[in-house]
Amino acid sequence: MHAIQLVAPSLSGLRRTVLADPQPGPGEVLVRLRAAALNYIDLAVATERFPGARFPMIPVSDGAGEVVALGPDVEDVEDVRVGMRVVPHFMPDWHSGPLEQRRVRRMRGITLPGSLAEYVAVPAASVVPLPAHLDFAQGATLPVAATTAWNAVRSAQVRPGSVVVLLGTGGVSLFALQFAKASGATVILASSSEEKLERGRRLGADHLVDYVARPDWDAAVMDITSGRGADLVVESVGGATFARSITAAAVGGTVFTVGFVGGAHAQVDVLAIMSKALRIVGNNTGSVADLREAVRAIAAHRIEPVIDRRFGFDEADDAYAVLAEGRTHVGKLAIVHERG
Amino acid sequence: MHAIQLVAPSLSGLRRTVLADPQPGPGEVLVRLRAAALNYIDLAVATERFPGARFPMIPVSDGAGEVVALGPDVEDVEDVRVGMRVVPHFMPDWHSGPLEQRRVRRMRGITLPGSLAEYVAVPAASVVPLPAHLDFAQGATLPVAATTAWNAVRSAQVRPGSVVVLLGTGGVSLFALQFAKASGATVILASSSEEKLERGRRLGADHLVDYVARPDWDAAVMDITSGRGADLVVESVGGATFARSITAAAVGGTVFTVGFVGGAHAQVDVLAIMSKALRIVGNNTGSVADLREAVRAIAAHRIEPVIDRRFGFDEADDAYAVLAEGRTHVGKLAIVHERG
Amino acid sequence: MHAIQLVAPSLSGLRRTVLADPQPGPGEVLVRLRAAALNYIDLAVATERFPGARFPMIPVSDGAGEVVALGPDVEDVEDVRVGMRVVPHFMPDWHSGPLEQRRVRRMRGITLPGSLAEYVAVPAASVVPLPAHLDFAQGATLPVAATTAWNAVRSAQVRPGSVVVLLGTGGVSLFALQFAKASGATVILASSSEEKLERGRRLGADHLVDYVARPDWDAAVMDITSGRGADLVVESVGGATFARSITAAAVGGTVFTVGFVGGAHAQVDVLAIMSKALRIVGNNTGSVADLREAVRAIAAHRIEPVIDRRFGFDEADDAYAVLAEGRTHVGKLAIVHERG
Amino acid sequence: MHAIQLVAPSLSGLRRTVLADPQPGPGEVLVRLRAAALNYIDLAVATERFPGARFPMIPVSDGAGEVVALGPDVEDVEDVRVGMRVVPHFMPDWHSGPLEQRRVRRMRGITLPGSLAEYVAVPAASVVPLPAHLDFAQGATLPVAATTAWNAVRSAQVRPGSVVVLLGTGGVSLFALQFAKASGATVILASSSEEKLERGRRLGADHLVDYVARPDWDAAVMDITSGRGADLVVESVGGATFARSITAAAVGGTVFTVGFVGGAHAQVDVLAIMSKALRIVGNNTGSVADLREAVRAIAAHRIEPVIDRRFGFDEADDAYAVLAEGRTHVGKLAIVHERG
Repeated sequence: MHAIQLVAPSLSGLRRTVLADPQPGPGEVLVRLRAAALNYIDLAVATERFPGARFPMIPVSDGAGEVVALGPDVEDVEDVRVGMRVVPHFMPDWHSGPLEQRRVRRMRGITLPGSLAEYVAVPAASVVPLPAHLDFAQGATLPVAATTAWNAVRSAQVRPGSVVVLLGTGGVSLFALQFAKASGATVILASSSEEKLERGRRLGADHLVDYVARPDWDAAVMDITSGRGADLVVESVGGATFARSITAAAVGGTVFTVGFVGGAHAQVDVLAIMSKALRIVGNNTGSVADLREAVRAIAAHRIEPVIDRRFGFDEADDAYAVLAEGRTHVGKLAIVHERG
Repeated sequence: MHAIQLVAPSLSGLRRTVLADPQPGPGEVLVRLRAAALNYIDLAVATERFPGARFPMIPVSDGAGEVVALGPDVEDVEDVRVGMRVVPHFMPDWHSGPLEQRRVRRMRGITLPGSLAEYVAVPAASVVPLPAHLDFAQGATLPVAATTAWNAVRSAQVRPGSVVVLLGTGGVSLFALQFAKASGATVILASSSEEKLERGRRLGADHLVDYVARPDWDAAVMDITSGRGADLVVESVGGATFARSITAAAVGGTVFTVGFVGGAHAQVDVLAIMSKALRIVGNNTGSVADLREAVRAIAAHRIEPVIDRRFGFDEADDAYAVLAEGRTHVGKLAIVHERG
Repeated sequence: MHAIQLVAPSLSGLRRTVLADPQPGPGEVLVRLRAAALNYIDLAVATERFPGARFPMIPVSDGAGEVVALGPDVEDVEDVRVGMRVVPHFMPDWHSGPLEQRRVRRMRGITLPGSLAEYVAVPAASVVPLPAHLDFAQGATLPVAATTAWNAVRSAQVRPGSVVVLLGTGGVSLFALQFAKASGATVILASSSEEKLERGRRLGADHLVDYVARPDWDAAVMDITSGRGADLVVESVGGATFARSITAAAVGGTVFTVGFVGGAHAQVDVLAIMSKALRIVGNNTGSVADLREAVRAIAAHRIEPVIDRRFGFDEADDAYAVLAEGRTHVGKLAIVHERG
Repeated sequence: MHAIQLVAPSLSGLRRTVLADPQPGPGEVLVRLRAAALNYIDLAVATERFPGARFPMIPVSDGAGEVVALGPDVEDVEDVRVGMRVVPHFMPDWHSGPLEQRRVRRMRGITLPGSLAEYVAVPAASVVPLPAHLDFAQGATLPVAATTAWNAVRSAQVRPGSVVVLLGTGGVSLFALQFAKASGATVILASSSEEKLERGRRLGADHLVDYVARPDWDAAVMDITSGRGADLVVESVGGATFARSITAAAVGGTVFTVGFVGGAHAQVDVLAIMSKALRIVGNNTGSVADLREAVRAIAAHRIEPVIDRRFGFDEADDAYAVLAEGRTHVGKLAIVHERG
């Protein structure tokens, strides 16, 4: 099969190659991949010595395709069929339940073959059917970003009347926006440009805060909510925003921590955490069951993942380069596989 | 003040009378009542020897009005002001948290004065501001029915992609319908006539089942959900439907038990409860905090309570009579107080 | 290897035989079984047309042994080593999280080879290390009964000051007794003889009710708790006791439903469920993660599983016969494999 | 009545005086106070411009005594009787449920009369009966410290097999130690001297870490738990320890934040919060219902609050002085009221 390998942890280490087709083992299915989508974790794997990564490797955790063959005994135990359009979860051993280290050692695009290839054999238990209204590129955006966003909205028990604050227009934020709106919440989106905010408004954001014009976006949240604050802040930035996320939270609110592009260390106000009885909840994406639930919501509400740009299979370098520049895109970057 | 008293547990025991105006004590506010709304519990009080009820009494648990005076020290501790349009919760001592017997001994319309009077003194901690888009009659429908429906939807953690089954078009069902839709759920409504179902459809019900035409409405739920079943069944009937509610529930689903007009005893399939890991959850309305959350959702989504008929203060007998007939109304019966 | 097969759904269908040794496939480990333990489900498989069972088969869901070989790639992903004493969970695909049908189709002793054999190949992800203080027969009693009892105690959030009611001295009840005591609860044990109650007392039961002498054991629970009732009733019987379990529960209490030997249908008081805000929770044993947590508690508290009798491998018929008689044993029936 | 007033926010502002006896209003009971106990919040009130405090005032939030009179109508609605030994909760309006600002504005010893007086009138709904095995001084230690410790242990769902880390031997830590042991947990206590650790050992601590000898107590926790970490860290210090508390937590663990004597600002590792899926939970003591549950556990396990020193009513200055010195006491400081 055609594939792109990363031969070393470097953006210049991507190489188009031809490899033997994988075969599905017991409990596995063979998926003909049709699209991939990038996340920051792919950039980390391609630029750093990421724990567990061994080179050469087929990179990119997220992908989508169709089932073309079943391994031995698979028909008896799983809800998968040949011809089904599916999303294989990137952590195939984490079926359900809370995070356990033993279930997240194998990750597609890091310790298992990723999505820049024609075929991949994955556990049947790790694939989720793709809703009819999504194409493969849209499907490929789901495992990391939609699962994370779903868990943010679910963990904080967002419901009609809840107030949700989102930071920026990355993949997690835009999925969280759509899940929060589908859950009946009021959404406040803070972002860095009128253009990005306008994009959020079209997806349903109720209140927009330009944090360049208004760096004290936490105070803006308090103004908008008449001093009450947010039930959920999806903390997708990290150090640069963490303290304000705590300030922006309501009594009993949740700061759901999913990112650190703005710094892996943060200063927190312990007194505020106590006096407002806050919950700061860390999240490491989610399980296959979480992805399945997110997909169910996406199907019920015909939610459209936001894709900033689609690249061809031969343009994978360009896709990584855009991701590495940072901050210029809205939503996800997809790589669409050529046929044959 | 003008008031209607129930002098004995009989539908013919309602008497118009004049009583001394109540005065707000410490921690209380005086509310000028402008509307009341009936529930089955009011019928029980007016027809049976209800535990705790002593006659003569001012009946009707639910009401709404405006604050006209504050008791001593109230301004310092509560978010109420003279002139505020409010709903006093009918269980004024149950502020928040799970049911405790000690908090539900005092109930308006049973052991405390109810809503068929010009004025009532209630604890400041028990009133919830009325959203601007609701009139007093709509507000009066909230404490019992909206709180119960809110707790049903919240307890089962209804979210986008959830399937909710509702039985009939009583007050709880129609609030649950609106809360479930606001929460992103798919709603299946089972009712007894095309007219009632049509009413449900206009409020957003996704699937309609006429249970006269199709007594096996549980099988209909399975058909509609491709064999998966419902995440939540709001069991507002009791004995007559309970077994089918269990059948209609999905694996991991909740049967939320809020009514017994169809019988206080039910046959259940223990094996189904186990093999589907069901939760059957009993509910006794809810707290002031639950009402406040429900009102917050109602305000955010501009939800309109469904009122079947509005009666004048002198038509209270007629309102009780319609309630006693049963099953002919859709939504709530309100009693609007004349001025002066 | 030596094995005992069930050739038909009949107690007389057990046959000692010799079969080819299984080999561990990818993701599997080979376990040399050293003991098995019986549950009612084994009786059902041996006497009824159990769904999914195909004959001939190696019966008995629960067992314990030691890891003697690893399948390909296992060392990288799981915490298992050759020589480790382990308990393979009987539902190997249910790793964690709530019940999902897709995860419980494969069950050891029903649709997968059970424990009456020298060897079995099982998913590495399904085995849990055996605590040092337990022998293989004790370990074999854990998957069905200890997991169920653990989930009962955990689901109801039993804590110091909680009151737990247990019915009888079967395996689930006796594990629940020990978990409840370790959790700080007060335990009321209802059973049918002084001898069984005395056994419960020695395991820590605080209050004993002989339900032959006192059929209204629910009233006895109310007396013991000064009218408050139980926070948790572990309903291990079914139809014959269900109504009294509801009566015995406190406001906000849980009736945790794990058995139906006393009938699969029950009459319930809907009004009591509502007015006490009860939760009736169905349970279908539990996941590998639940078993692992139960084992962690067993290790921390050096809990000893209660084994009524140990049978030799050639006495499997006798073990089934004792189980079929019913009600005469206290705790579990174990079958200990001969060596080689 | 005799009372001690704080006439200004200064440790030298305590004045013995005689005031009119309070009278119980509607819904209130009159308590003859017999003991008080100090918390850091009392020190803050006596040394800073604490929000809401107005002088002169009767200080000290925590106390215990006996009911000597009931206000109008109290007998019908609450479980209190004249002669009952009780603990009045210091936040009398927070009956149950999660923190709401409206319920915590009135606090005994800050905005309401505190415990350095012969009598106090408090809401009947805010008193909890004192278990028989505790004297008044022991009872006085419960509202702030035992409620906080109870919520720590309950919020993290501590159960048999859980690992709990405690910092120091203050009141919250020592209650948490006893609640954690009663809940079946393994307890690791980190403190600053052999003497304090020995005290913890006698109360049941399983592992002791001297953090003077071993400042990297988080690494010690990892050693003790074979690299797994703690399910719960009760963060009673703040800035000085917060980062290590995060390091010491297990995957899925909880850092329960209850104090800031070591600094109100802390540096946190966002990546660790995410990768371990931690929950950092802030806590502002708790409700009357939480206190009632804590007392139920204390009664069931005959838990003895740890009192370092008992001062006479005229020695209140000395008690404050010892508290102000900091760190030299183990457990609580009580003030016992003279008779008459």
